[in-house]
Amino acid sequence: MTRPTRTSRYCIGIDLGGTYVKFALLDDRNQASGVFQLETPPDRDGVVAQMINGARKLLVDQGVSHDQVAGVGIGSPGPLDIESGTLISLANLPGLENLPIRDVVSAGLDLPAVLENDANAAAYGEFLCGSGKGTRHMVMLTLGTGVGSGIIIDGKLLHGAHGIGGELGHMIVEPSGELCGCGQAGCLECYGSAVNVAQIAASRIKDGRTGLLAAVLKQTGSITAQEICETAAAGDEFAKEIWSEAVRHIALACVSISRIFDPDKIILGGGMAKSGDFLLKPVSMQFNKLHWRLTDVKTKIRLAKLGNDAGAIGAAGVAWSALGC
Amino acid sequence: MTRPTRTSRYCIGIDLGGTYVKFALLDDRNQASGVFQLETPPDRDGVVAQMINGARKLLVDQGVSHDQVAGVGIGSPGPLDIESGTLISLANLPGLENLPIRDVVSAGLDLPAVLENDANAAAYGEFLCGSGKGTRHMVMLTLGTGVGSGIIIDGKLLHGAHGIGGELGHMIVEPSGELCGCGQAGCLECYGSAVNVAQIAASRIKDGRTGLLAAVLKQTGSITAQEICETAAAGDEFAKEIWSEAVRHIALACVSISRIFDPDKIILGGGMAKSGDFLLKPVSMQFNKLHWRLTDVKTKIRLAKLGNDAGAIGAAGVAWSALGC
Repeated sequence: MTRPTRTSRYCIGIDLGGTYVKFALLDDRNQASGVFQLETPPDRDGVVAQMINGARKLLVDQGVSHDQVAGVGIGSPGPLDIESGTLISLANLPGLENLPIRDVVSAGLDLPAVLENDANAAAYGEFLCGSGKGTRHMVMLTLGTGVGSGIIIDGKLLHGAHGIGGELGHMIVEPSGELCGCGQAGCLECYGSAVNVAQIAASRIKDGRTGLLAAVLKQTGSITAQEICETAAAGDEFAKEIWSEAVRHIALACVSISRIFDPDKIILGGGMAKSGDFLLKPVSMQFNKLHWRLTDVKTKIRLAKLGNDAGAIGAAGVAWSALGC
Repeated sequence: MTRPTRTSRYCIGIDLGGTYVKFALLDDRNQASGVFQLETPPDRDGVVAQMINGARKLLVDQGVSHDQVAGVGIGSPGPLDIESGTLISLANLPGLENLPIRDVVSAGLDLPAVLENDANAAAYGEFLCGSGKGTRHMVMLTLGTGVGSGIIIDGKLLHGAHGIGGELGHMIVEPSGELCGCGQAGCLECYGSAVNVAQIAASRIKDGRTGLLAAVLKQTGSITAQEICETAAAGDEFAKEIWSEAVRHIALACVSISRIFDPDKIILGGGMAKSGDFLLKPVSMQFNKLHWRLTDVKTKIRLAKLGNDAGAIGAAGVAWSALGC
């Protein structure tokens, strides 16, 4: 990250999450700076005030004046009405239903604003400043609580006809599979999200599986994807089985993504990607194995680089792109 | 179709197939006219001459002068090098390897030309003049010998970073499924193409299944998807089973397509779609059943309207779009 200068122009990015609101500046040469976070207040007015005050603090801290700022991008969990800039309903932020967040923040900061879903914003952040830098075609999978995704085609985010496209977490990868929270059966999310992988392990231990992982569950009362990964690395057979099932489903999804979008890169982020090469290497190996033989493998699988900063940086990038400043 | 006028401008569309070369005119208000076909000669020089002479005949027949024509679009089976306008290798046209078809036809007709793969051209034809008219986001599945597809996002065909995207026929729908000709396992093509559905039926009859369909196979030596459909309509249990398996896989693919692209329409064409409502109705029903519950069903499934004319009409449309005339 570089220090802002007096002659640059900037967009502000705000990433609204259930626990934190995150802020970033992005200049007109895609240099990010000043990323910081504040707690997400529990009420509607508090959230709006935190977003506006945080953005003002970002400018003061970075020595950027109001007239150097072109606009604001807001990333938020969905479902959203992108067109009207409204939050529809947020599972982790129950007081914000039907809040016209874009216009409220725009008025509070006296700047044009744009709203984008958080998975798309994170993908756009990686595209501009992270592992997607230099590509025009990339797909990001955020393997976290759920499986979020952002699809970038020739430099543009895919939204679909009704603003609900780009949901690769709900691509069906096991047609006779687990019931997903969305009502479909066999979604990628059931097999590739950090939370679901941990749940699969816990449920099999309950059904009688033993070993290191079962001991962790007994001791701590819960299991994380990170612990499955570490236990598998330590040689536990059951943990290895769980991990390789997750890897296989992520690789299967990557093959379909490669056939559909032919991207330069598929970028893996979120909780599962914290395992680094322990995720990337077997996913890449399975991907190469399952991939068609009609052409060479052209799509590269990579880990995300920006971690939790991707959303705020990407939201600022979305503002640059949407406002055409 | 309307008659061309002296004041209109046109693009010529040429659809190169293994059996026929098809020609169409498309004016600057997306009105198609003059569609006709010639046989595909067996040799390289013959094919080139047929394409050039057919295009000239199209202009003469339709009373359109050379200076009214903006350009030529060529649709061809792949793999192609779209950028250099070259046919790489064609399974059904073995003499045409490495032919720089775009430049040869362009020189022969003294017009700018553009090359596109045939499935994309057919999708673009339906988009401009068929069942996709009025949408900006649509996906077409051509359920024929294989499963071809064309994806249109905000009015533009998806190609991918290396020109090999948009291959929905090779999306994996059964991860432990049949081996596909492409080298992957469980591709949509294995379950949804007219040829593969007939092959599945024939192989199960060989393994002992009986009934009306088995009698057809015994009598004629082969089965078509059309015959499976008719036999199922006549009440044969085995034919119904085969048909509903195909329907289920096509519907599963449509659910994933809806999650990924959120299109206004998914359009079904090719041999399977000749069965009309007997395909459309159960696919739509299964689609609604398998679809998530987080939003209403926004994507409509429709049958293609232009039949075999879609490719030539769409190729002309691709020329309009690519040449920016």
